[in-house]
Amino acid sequence: MNGAQSLVQTLLRGGMKVCFANPGTSEMHFVAALDAHPDLRCVLCLFEGGATGAADGYFRMTGDIAATLLHLSPGLGNGFANLHTARKAGSAMLTIVGDHATHHMAYESPLKGDISALSRAIAHWTRVSTDANNVASDGAHAMAAARAHNGQLATLVLPANTAWQAAKGSAARVSTPALIRPDLARIRAAAHTLQLSGAALLVDGPTLHGELGPLAARIAKKTGARLIAPYLASRIRRGVGAVAFERLAYGVDENAAVLKDVRHMLLVGAQRPTNFFAYPGKPSLPEAAGTAVHDLCSRSMDVGYTLGVLADCLGVCANDDFDRLPLALPELPSGRVMDLTRIGQALAHLLPGNAIVVDESITMARYLMPPSARARAHDWLHTTGGAIGFGLPNAVGAAIACPNRQVLALTGDGSAMYTLQALWTMAREQLKVITVVFANQGYQILRGELVGVGVTAVGRNAVRMLNVTQPQLDWVKLSEGHGVPAHRVTDVDGFVAAMQVAIAKSGPHLIEVVCPV
Amino acid sequence: MNGAQSLVQTLLRGGMKVCFANPGTSEMHFVAALDAHPDLRCVLCLFEGGATGAADGYFRMTGDIAATLLHLSPGLGNGFANLHTARKAGSAMLTIVGDHATHHMAYESPLKGDISALSRAIAHWTRVSTDANNVASDGAHAMAAARAHNGQLATLVLPANTAWQAAKGSAARVSTPALIRPDLARIRAAAHTLQLSGAALLVDGPTLHGELGPLAARIAKKTGARLIAPYLASRIRRGVGAVAFERLAYGVDENAAVLKDVRHMLLVGAQRPTNFFAYPGKPSLPEAAGTAVHDLCSRSMDVGYTLGVLADCLGVCANDDFDRLPLALPELPSGRVMDLTRIGQALAHLLPGNAIVVDESITMARYLMPPSARARAHDWLHTTGGAIGFGLPNAVGAAIACPNRQVLALTGDGSAMYTLQALWTMAREQLKVITVVFANQGYQILRGELVGVGVTAVGRNAVRMLNVTQPQLDWVKLSEGHGVPAHRVTDVDGFVAAMQVAIAKSGPHLIEVVCPV
Repeated sequence: MNGAQSLVQTLLRGGMKVCFANPGTSEMHFVAALDAHPDLRCVLCLFEGGATGAADGYFRMTGDIAATLLHLSPGLGNGFANLHTARKAGSAMLTIVGDHATHHMAYESPLKGDISALSRAIAHWTRVSTDANNVASDGAHAMAAARAHNGQLATLVLPANTAWQAAKGSAARVSTPALIRPDLARIRAAAHTLQLSGAALLVDGPTLHGELGPLAARIAKKTGARLIAPYLASRIRRGVGAVAFERLAYGVDENAAVLKDVRHMLLVGAQRPTNFFAYPGKPSLPEAAGTAVHDLCSRSMDVGYTLGVLADCLGVCANDDFDRLPLALPELPSGRVMDLTRIGQALAHLLPGNAIVVDESITMARYLMPPSARARAHDWLHTTGGAIGFGLPNAVGAAIACPNRQVLALTGDGSAMYTLQALWTMAREQLKVITVVFANQGYQILRGELVGVGVTAVGRNAVRMLNVTQPQLDWVKLSEGHGVPAHRVTDVDGFVAAMQVAIAKSGPHLIEVVCPV
Repeated sequence: MNGAQSLVQTLLRGGMKVCFANPGTSEMHFVAALDAHPDLRCVLCLFEGGATGAADGYFRMTGDIAATLLHLSPGLGNGFANLHTARKAGSAMLTIVGDHATHHMAYESPLKGDISALSRAIAHWTRVSTDANNVASDGAHAMAAARAHNGQLATLVLPANTAWQAAKGSAARVSTPALIRPDLARIRAAAHTLQLSGAALLVDGPTLHGELGPLAARIAKKTGARLIAPYLASRIRRGVGAVAFERLAYGVDENAAVLKDVRHMLLVGAQRPTNFFAYPGKPSLPEAAGTAVHDLCSRSMDVGYTLGVLADCLGVCANDDFDRLPLALPELPSGRVMDLTRIGQALAHLLPGNAIVVDESITMARYLMPPSARARAHDWLHTTGGAIGFGLPNAVGAAIACPNRQVLALTGDGSAMYTLQALWTMAREQLKVITVVFANQGYQILRGELVGVGVTAVGRNAVRMLNVTQPQLDWVKLSEGHGVPAHRVTDVDGFVAAMQVAIAKSGPHLIEVVCPV
């Protein structure tokens, strides 16, 4: 057995099922070792951001880690942006980066780079294996690190000779440390706080989609506190039967409006709200002056325990009533014009039950998200890190995680261009992903931001930096070039027809929605 | 005047002409400031690797810096791989990264990240501007840092408020430090060494394409030393009239064969040769045991001075004869079959005078490079860092730098997929770039590497990691989708015809060469 084989066996023993890979020479032994283990599913991505984004989507939908396999520091660099987004989402993943053989690092070969320094700029945990006999235990520790504290980014650097040299067998799974719990006295005090006038309970993470959601909703109902979700959720359950969360906003003024009457903000598994960007003369924090912020339980702590004790303190019962959203489907719209409001209604009407929506539609989201609030039950995934290029790769990971669910990737054209290579993986794996590209021919959000930061006159240089025109992108050709069939639609009727075709299929499809600029 | 305006004026005052940009909200004031200065040419790239790769190509062809404008840590992450390649090329560039306003960094906003840590993993120089009044002088120092030591990577992080707040005017250009020179005694000793039996002079950098090349060739001819270039050159002059350099090789055995008779290896502006990768049981260094390595002048030192003194010591005169390559064009081949040898001959025959070839053809290079050795004069640019995704962006930068020269980007299909968004910039800027994609439907080099590292049996998992099939990429559609007209060719006649059409055009074109797998 060599080091690579011992690592693959360790990964399998630890419960790893999928590896999103973009390997090179230094990873060839690992690739070879995978041959003996078809139970570790290898998914090839043609760009590393596709691999890291897919592992993020996989975690969001399974709650467990996938591996990525990348090639030295340039490979990790290409995966960086979606690692950033995964970190902000609280996702766990194991990034395996091949490196030169240890004895080769003494020399200035072309691919030599400081993988550890790069990893430490984003990951919670970084280790370089230096001996084939340690690879298995390093791998077990890396998996444990990724799973620790409700999810971390762990990087294991694997020098080529530690992969090819003889090694001991697989290592046992390493247990992750117990989650930290808040003091009981603080939880009791929080239970009191929630009953005060102007109290709000802010939650995030699994509470937004899992079993803890109804518990939080019962606590809110019992205390009269408002129940608020962040603007960007790694995954939130929506539609019929879901908990009705309020939601923070993108804009500074809108965000302040949501929180203006909150006097006591209790954070359970949620970060303190902050505005997305700073603007001249505007605050960084959205809450009103004098609001007390109670950071009871960070998202890396034991959220389930905390909510459970809170519920006990308040006498909340498991069968207490709480407000579940009813089904309220918009009628299927029609029309021979392009109208984004009606596109949103059509999406909501057509959304299959238990669908997964990966949303990088940016400025379009205001049309697309509200109509589906009471549609059939579904999960909605946001780009938590603000790094664009999240959507298509995340959809790949979500579809690998949930092969029986319809995935919709909603994306702006500017955003989709960062990681369009993910389309190819959708085609190869025949994933049930419908990608809807809203082609407004530019960075629509920046057109607004330019005004938002106080710029009034927009000249030629600036316009050319914000518009993706001259030439226009042809998303039907881009999609077909990657092997994904595609439609272009210019009106509501066309969109409805294309969606019906796409939903009926088992494989991927792309719809280019030509939007007014 | 605000900080952004003071920076733009400083860049112009320091001689900056081009900015390859992929801006976001935090860069909006910089974008606005550019409006008043159309003499700083802004080139939009739809992915940050396109911007950094273009700045690398621009430096290779002009010897001076371009700026890139990126958006926080994910933007810099996306630019990382081509920064790696630029660093290995010895290229200089100024990377400007917008960040949150300084007061906003206290909070965990979605895009908050450690830009400095990321930059320090690759750049030689990193500075965060913390006050609008310092932005101009920070910019001047950043440009000086980029130009220092024959070329460095400099990163200037620009928090949004330092861009929008009032600032002093532009700063004067900062002089770069004088280049370090070797001791005269060491140069004299080296002159003696070169005359010994088994001596070789290894050169790199501007010596491979500029005026120092003939000087090095005269020194070699006078002493009888061999004159050797690295395997990967940032830019090498080839074809009629060029210096005849020997070249190191990719393969371990081939590399050793080139150097087997070398007893004294003198490095002037070149790094010590090292094999690209390590393999089980094979050495990292290519020279024979007992070879003396004389590291006289690193590439960050004064190479011109060193070669000049060497020439003086040896009595080399400016009009001494040296071996220039003659013109020897292969005949234009024909045939209704695909034959890569003949494709290489056709390329050599058709290559216009003073063309620029950006070569990321990887395994195809063995067919494409040799036939053009004595073609019309041209420059050849390699992917110095081994990070793929270099070719198309570098071609953009080379074409912006040299608008009157024909640029050819030769690329494998696997490689081209990393940064295919550069095609759009070729279309927008109507660059005279012909992209030739050699579509062998996979990572051809890895098929070889798998064997090279000692793997004998290749199973399903491995094959699926190396083949870009199921589905096949359609490069004509991918190209047209980005706005670049394209042809697919399946035989030599088709290639010749497509090349003739493409060369006659003023704008970009893509040719997909369907290769035997």
